[in-house]
Amino acid sequence: MTTLRRVGFLGLGIMGSRMALNLKKKGFEVVVWNRTAARTEELVPHGLTVAATPRELAAQVDAMCTCVADPGALEQVALGPDGLVHGTRRGQLLIDFSTVSVDLVRSLAAAFEAKGVSFLDAPVTGSKGGAEKGTLVIMVGADEAALARAQPIFQAVGEKVIHCGPVGAGTQVKLAGNGLIAAMLQAFSEGLLLTSKAGVNPQAFIDVVQASGFRSPYFDFKGKQILDHDFATHFSVDLMHKDLSLLVDNAGKHGVPTPSAAAMEQTYQLARAGGLGSQDIAAVVTVFEELMGHRIARR
Amino acid sequence: MTTLRRVGFLGLGIMGSRMALNLKKKGFEVVVWNRTAARTEELVPHGLTVAATPRELAAQVDAMCTCVADPGALEQVALGPDGLVHGTRRGQLLIDFSTVSVDLVRSLAAAFEAKGVSFLDAPVTGSKGGAEKGTLVIMVGADEAALARAQPIFQAVGEKVIHCGPVGAGTQVKLAGNGLIAAMLQAFSEGLLLTSKAGVNPQAFIDVVQASGFRSPYFDFKGKQILDHDFATHFSVDLMHKDLSLLVDNAGKHGVPTPSAAAMEQTYQLARAGGLGSQDIAAVVTVFEELMGHRIARR
Amino acid sequence: MTTLRRVGFLGLGIMGSRMALNLKKKGFEVVVWNRTAARTEELVPHGLTVAATPRELAAQVDAMCTCVADPGALEQVALGPDGLVHGTRRGQLLIDFSTVSVDLVRSLAAAFEAKGVSFLDAPVTGSKGGAEKGTLVIMVGADEAALARAQPIFQAVGEKVIHCGPVGAGTQVKLAGNGLIAAMLQAFSEGLLLTSKAGVNPQAFIDVVQASGFRSPYFDFKGKQILDHDFATHFSVDLMHKDLSLLVDNAGKHGVPTPSAAAMEQTYQLARAGGLGSQDIAAVVTVFEELMGHRIARR
Amino acid sequence: MTTLRRVGFLGLGIMGSRMALNLKKKGFEVVVWNRTAARTEELVPHGLTVAATPRELAAQVDAMCTCVADPGALEQVALGPDGLVHGTRRGQLLIDFSTVSVDLVRSLAAAFEAKGVSFLDAPVTGSKGGAEKGTLVIMVGADEAALARAQPIFQAVGEKVIHCGPVGAGTQVKLAGNGLIAAMLQAFSEGLLLTSKAGVNPQAFIDVVQASGFRSPYFDFKGKQILDHDFATHFSVDLMHKDLSLLVDNAGKHGVPTPSAAAMEQTYQLARAGGLGSQDIAAVVTVFEELMGHRIARR
Repeated sequence: MTTLRRVGFLGLGIMGSRMALNLKKKGFEVVVWNRTAARTEELVPHGLTVAATPRELAAQVDAMCTCVADPGALEQVALGPDGLVHGTRRGQLLIDFSTVSVDLVRSLAAAFEAKGVSFLDAPVTGSKGGAEKGTLVIMVGADEAALARAQPIFQAVGEKVIHCGPVGAGTQVKLAGNGLIAAMLQAFSEGLLLTSKAGVNPQAFIDVVQASGFRSPYFDFKGKQILDHDFATHFSVDLMHKDLSLLVDNAGKHGVPTPSAAAMEQTYQLARAGGLGSQDIAAVVTVFEELMGHRIARR
Repeated sequence: MTTLRRVGFLGLGIMGSRMALNLKKKGFEVVVWNRTAARTEELVPHGLTVAATPRELAAQVDAMCTCVADPGALEQVALGPDGLVHGTRRGQLLIDFSTVSVDLVRSLAAAFEAKGVSFLDAPVTGSKGGAEKGTLVIMVGADEAALARAQPIFQAVGEKVIHCGPVGAGTQVKLAGNGLIAAMLQAFSEGLLLTSKAGVNPQAFIDVVQASGFRSPYFDFKGKQILDHDFATHFSVDLMHKDLSLLVDNAGKHGVPTPSAAAMEQTYQLARAGGLGSQDIAAVVTVFEELMGHRIARR
Repeated sequence: MTTLRRVGFLGLGIMGSRMALNLKKKGFEVVVWNRTAARTEELVPHGLTVAATPRELAAQVDAMCTCVADPGALEQVALGPDGLVHGTRRGQLLIDFSTVSVDLVRSLAAAFEAKGVSFLDAPVTGSKGGAEKGTLVIMVGADEAALARAQPIFQAVGEKVIHCGPVGAGTQVKLAGNGLIAAMLQAFSEGLLLTSKAGVNPQAFIDVVQASGFRSPYFDFKGKQILDHDFATHFSVDLMHKDLSLLVDNAGKHGVPTPSAAAMEQTYQLARAGGLGSQDIAAVVTVFEELMGHRIARR
Repeated sequence: MTTLRRVGFLGLGIMGSRMALNLKKKGFEVVVWNRTAARTEELVPHGLTVAATPRELAAQVDAMCTCVADPGALEQVALGPDGLVHGTRRGQLLIDFSTVSVDLVRSLAAAFEAKGVSFLDAPVTGSKGGAEKGTLVIMVGADEAALARAQPIFQAVGEKVIHCGPVGAGTQVKLAGNGLIAAMLQAFSEGLLLTSKAGVNPQAFIDVVQASGFRSPYFDFKGKQILDHDFATHFSVDLMHKDLSLLVDNAGKHGVPTPSAAAMEQTYQLARAGGLGSQDIAAVVTVFEELMGHRIARR
C-alpha cells in the first residue's frame, strides 16, 4: 500500500474549498479541479495545483476526494467522458464527501472497486464553520481496511470520524441527520412565528427551549440568524431540499414511513417555489413571514 | 398583601403529586385535592392535608395551584358546581401549571380577576424527573406584580422561571415548545428506523447526531428509551396529542402556518389509533415498527 | 303535533337568505333574524317579517331554523342572553343547517330536548346555487319522528334529504364530505399548477380527468373558476378551514387517522395566512401561483 | 411512411396483456415479449407470436409498444444489452404506455429519435376494465406527425386520445391525474372510516357524496370495494406509490408545491410498510382499520 502523499480534490464550493485548504495545511500535496475554473484560482496562491480534467487529476494522485452539489454532478465527475474512472489506477482511494443517493454511492463503489480503487462514502456535517476550522464530523461507509487507509485525510478535515457500516451507510446516516436538522429548524421557526405573531417575546421562547432538556446549540445559532434576519448561507435551501428528497426516496425503498421528512420535503419545496433556493435554510421562515405579513421581532 | 403560607394543590398526577411534595418540603402548608381520592392518600403521611372539594380547598389557602390533564378538567375544577371560584376570596393567587388552551387561560383569568384573585398561567417542562427534583422550567404568563408574589411557589418547584408576557403567554410558549419536542423526537425516530432497517447500526446515527451542532441531551434520553424498548411514561402520547391539537388550533387563530406541528398532530393521532395513548411519547416509534415488522436493534 | 305554518330563520348569509326566501315561496310564513340587521331589510319586500331577537322569534314560530357561520355564533343565537332557548315552547322544532362541531350539536340537542323542543342537525351541501334553486342536499341527524315532522321544511329548501343517523350524524357526514371537497380541489389545483408550469395545456389535464372514471361535475365548475381567475365566493376559505379543523378534531376524538384532512387543514391555514380567508376555496391555488410567480394559463 | 401492420408489445402485465389482445382483435399482427416468459404463453393460442428479446422484436415490427412496471424496467427493455434500440430501424414508432419519469421519457425520445424512430409517451387510464374493453383514455406527448401515425394503434386500445403537448406532456398529465385519484380515494376512505367508527352508516356518506356536486363514478367503484372488503387488484399500491414519488419529484423540479401529493406519497408509504404493496389501492384503508381495530361496516 502506498502512503497517501498527493491528494486530489474535486468540487470547490463552500465546503470543498475549505477542506482542500486544510489538507494542504496538514502537509498533503493537493491537486484540485472544479467545474467552473474561476474557483480554482483563489487556491493557487496557497500552493495547490490545478488539473485540467478529473481524468488528469486521477493520474496524478494517491487519493481522490469529491465534494459536489448533487448526484448528477458526481456522476459526471466520476464516470463522465473525462471522468476520474478513466485516469485511475489500482490501489488508489476515492472518498466522496458529497451527499448523494445511496444507490449512486453503491454503483460508484462497484465501478471503482472493479478497477482496484477503494471507495468510501464520507458525507460530513458541520457546515461552513466546521469545514473552515477542520472540525467536521465525518460519517463513513466503508470496509475497515479502506477506513484505516483514509484516516490521515479524515483527520486533516474533521475532528470526529464515525464508522457507520459498509459503503452506503455513511450516506444513510447523513440523510437521516439532515432530516433531523430540517425538523428541528422548522418546529423552532414555527415557535418563533407563533410567539411573535401572538405578541409574546420570541426570545422568551428561545430561553425556555435552551433551559430545557431539549436544548441544543443549534437553536442559538439559528435563533440568532432568524431574529437578526441575517441569512448568510451556511447550508442552502436547494441542498437541503435535495437531501430531503433523497431521504424520502431512500426510506421508501426500505419501506420506512417518514411523516416528518415528508412534511419537511414539502416545506422546502414551498421555500424553493418562493425563490429561496440559494439562501440559507434559516431563511425558510421568511416564506411564512411574507405570507403572513408579519416579521418576527424582538420585543 | 398576605404572605403565602398555605398553598392548595389540585391535580395529583405524575407531575402534580411531585410538585405538591416539593412545596411541602420547602415549608409551605399544603392542602390537596384530586378527582380520584385514592391519589391523595399517598400524600397524607407526608403531612399534606386533603380538602373535600375545590371550593373547600379555596377557602383554606392563600394560593391555589392546578395541574390537571386537559381543558375540560381544569374548567370543572375552577368553575364547576363545587369549583374554586365559589370558595375564593380577594387577594388570593391562582397558578395553573397545566397546559390548556390560550382561550381557556384567558377566560379563567377574567373570571378570577373579577373576584380579586390574580391568575397566572405557568406551564412547566422537565417531565417526571424535573417535577421530582424541583428543577422544572416554568413559563409564566402574568403581570409583574402577580409574578413577584408567586415567586416563592415557583422557586419551590422549579429552578428556572421565565416570564413570557401577559396571561396566556406562558401557554403559548409551552405549546410551541411541545411542538418542537414532538418534531425532534419524530425525526430522530425516523433516523433510527431507517438506519436500523437498512442494516446500519442505529447507535452510529445517535453518535453522529450527538457529535454535531444539532446535538441535544434529549436524544440521549430518548435514544436510550427506544434502543432499550423501555417506555416508562414520562410524557404520554395522549397529552402530547392534546397539546399538538391546541398548538395547531392556536396557530390557526393567529394565522400562522405550522406544517411541522400539523404533521406531528397527525402522527400522534396515528399512534393513538394504534392504542398507544397512555404510553410515553418515545413509544410512537413502535407504531411504525409494528407496521414494518422490524424492531430497531443495536448491532 | 301542530302543523308547521310559521317558520323562523336565523342567519341570513349567502345560504340562509336564499333558504329563507324558498321557505316563503313554498307557502310558509317566515320570520327572520340576523346579527347585522341590514341583511333583513332586503327580505322584507318579499313578505318576510323581522324579529328583534332570537328569543322573540322563538315565541312566534312553530319551527326555528339556524344557519350561521361558526360554533360561537350558533351558541350565542341558541343559548345567549336573548337566545332561542328563552323563548321556546314544548312541541317546537329546531333545525340547524349550520356546520358546527358534533359536540356542540349534541349539547344543543340536550338543552332543547329538555324544554320539549326536538333538535335536528341538518347541514347542507350545494353552495350558493343550490340554496337559490332549492336543490340542496340535506344530511340529517335526528330520530325518525323529528325527521318526519321536518320534512316539509326540508322539501322547501332541498331536493334530497338523507337520514344519516341520530343527532350529530348529519354533522359527521357533512364534515367528512367537506374533507373530500378540499382534497379533490387541492389535488386538482396541483395538477393545473404542474401542467401549466411545465408548459402543458392545463385544459388537457381537465379533459383527461373528465374523460376518466374519476370525473366529477365539480372539476368543470372549479376548473372554469381557476382558468378564468374568477373567484366569486361560493364557499369561503375561512369556512372550509373551520370545517377541516372540526373534522380533524372530531376524527381525533374517535381515534381515526386522517392524513388527507390534516394536510388540507394546513393548506387552508396557509391560504388564510396569505389573506384569502374571505375568498372562494378555488382561490387557494393563487397562494401557490403567487409564491411561484406563475399564473395558470390556457395555451 | 410505411403503414403499421406488425406491432410489437413488450410488458404483458394486467394492462399490457389486454392491450396486446385488443391490437390483435383489431387486425394487427402482434409480436410480444415479456421479462417472464410464462406470461407470453397464454397469448400464443390467440395468434400472437413471441420474440426472444426486445432487440429481436424490434427487428420484426413497424411499431413497438411498451407497458412495463417502472422506470428501471423500461430502461432495460429500451436501452439494455438486448434492448429495442439495438434492433430498430428508421421510420418505426415507439409508443410507451407505461408511467415513468418525465426525465426518462425525454432521454428515451432523444435516444430513439437519433435512430430515426419517433417516440410517443402515451400513458393510459382506465385500469383493468378499460384495458379489457378497449376503452382506455390515452394521454399523448408527441408531435402532431407522430400522433397521426400512431392513431390506428391508439384507436385499437382506447376510446379517447388526448394530445397533451410535446414528448413528456402525456406523462406529466398522467402523474397529476394519479395524484388526483389518490387524493379522492384517501379523503373518501377517511370519510368512511370516521362515519363508520362514529356509528353512522357509511352508506349514508356515500349517498350524500353521490347526491352532491362533487359526485364521481369513482366513488361507487371504490365504495363497493371497501364496503365489501374485496380488494382484487385494479391498480396496485406499489404502482401508485411509484407514481406519487414521480409526481412529487417532477413537481419539485418545476418548483410547484404539492401538499396533497406529498401527503399521499407518505400515506402510500405507510401502506407499503404495512405489507399492502401488491394489493389494490382501495386496500390502503385497511392499514387504518387494523391500527384502529375497527372495520368499516354497513349498518
